[in-house]
Amino acid sequence: MKHLTQNDIGKLDHLYKINLINSCSGYKSANLIGTKSKNNIENVAVFSSVTHLGSAPPLFGFFLRPNTVPRNTYENIKETGVYTINSVHAHNFEDAHHTSAKYDKTISEFDVTNLKSEQKKDFYAPFVHGSPIQMAMKFVEEYHIKANNTILLIGEVQDLYFNENLLENDGYINLSKAEIISINGLDGYTIPSLKTRLAYQRPKQVAK
Amino acid sequence: MKHLTQNDIGKLDHLYKINLINSCSGYKSANLIGTKSKNNIENVAVFSSVTHLGSAPPLFGFFLRPNTVPRNTYENIKETGVYTINSVHAHNFEDAHHTSAKYDKTISEFDVTNLKSEQKKDFYAPFVHGSPIQMAMKFVEEYHIKANNTILLIGEVQDLYFNENLLENDGYINLSKAEIISINGLDGYTIPSLKTRLAYQRPKQVAK
Repeated sequence: MKHLTQNDIGKLDHLYKINLINSCSGYKSANLIGTKSKNNIENVAVFSSVTHLGSAPPLFGFFLRPNTVPRNTYENIKETGVYTINSVHAHNFEDAHHTSAKYDKTISEFDVTNLKSEQKKDFYAPFVHGSPIQMAMKFVEEYHIKANNTILLIGEVQDLYFNENLLENDGYINLSKAEIISINGLDGYTIPSLKTRLAYQRPKQVAK
Repeated sequence: MKHLTQNDIGKLDHLYKINLINSCSGYKSANLIGTKSKNNIENVAVFSSVTHLGSAPPLFGFFLRPNTVPRNTYENIKETGVYTINSVHAHNFEDAHHTSAKYDKTISEFDVTNLKSEQKKDFYAPFVHGSPIQMAMKFVEEYHIKANNTILLIGEVQDLYFNENLLENDGYINLSKAEIISINGLDGYTIPSLKTRLAYQRPKQVAK
């Protein structure tokens, strides 16, 4: 196997290093986070770090790097307390990827892509029209990660919308039925197919 | 679309709810975390929450629920300061899944599955033999997540090992070449194929 020490990694060219390290932890989720500023400018941006924290209450977290990229998403959430999480799928992943371009905060990504904003009930933040899973989120708390000056932002699900044909009898949502995307590294997109579901595991009998 | 409010979700049966909420954020990474207690008992457990935090320094985080599951992984990391992250692939995902069974801390999951422990250099924690990507990790810091009493544990890569045939010219690791697994929900396993890599995105010209 190829072996790189911490020191070897530190010396790699920037782009090579971010390609490498972004691939090492495996596949990532692909979600569009929708927000709206106090001044009514909508923002939508792709994130690959949305992670399940717990189901009761239903909490998700994601990581932001406010010091290295425009922080529209972060600022809008802090201003308004709300955002949406929308799954990326086979029919919008190229537009989703384009939202990683660094636009000025006066420009909405909904205006420069084919992504369509959708309003639901009186929720302030915009959803992404056509996403098979859409969540209205309320900001709960944030943690400043000292190790690399990033932020973990945590929110709670207020409303959950999903295509009913994805739902199995036991509450499981089959992501592959909606051609939901998974990300490899910074820029690799895949459309997985469900291979198998395994049973809940109990310990085997072990002679002590 | 099917719509569930926060209140609806709260009233769902436990198993239905955890199946549902664990699916909503999309595909997850699949990794085996290897540790060893001070008393030389090895532990290996599957985690679907390993997330990239940054590449310089190379940092990964994952979430633990120390109050609801046996905390062998957490205790071993806090005792010894080190652990390993090993990718799950087509040939070991059933054994990886079995590590979610709740074994007593005196029992090593390496002894009750076909997973084989591997020692590298003088690193204290065990690797999973045959994993296409293996990382030696040093504990950096932890955050207690007040919202649901979980822990975010952050570590830095000390050594990175990977199958060289996965590597592309720009540092990208093609996970699909090693049949690395991605997880849907609590128990759905997939083996994605890379569809496409998209270019770095710059803003389009926009008339203001």
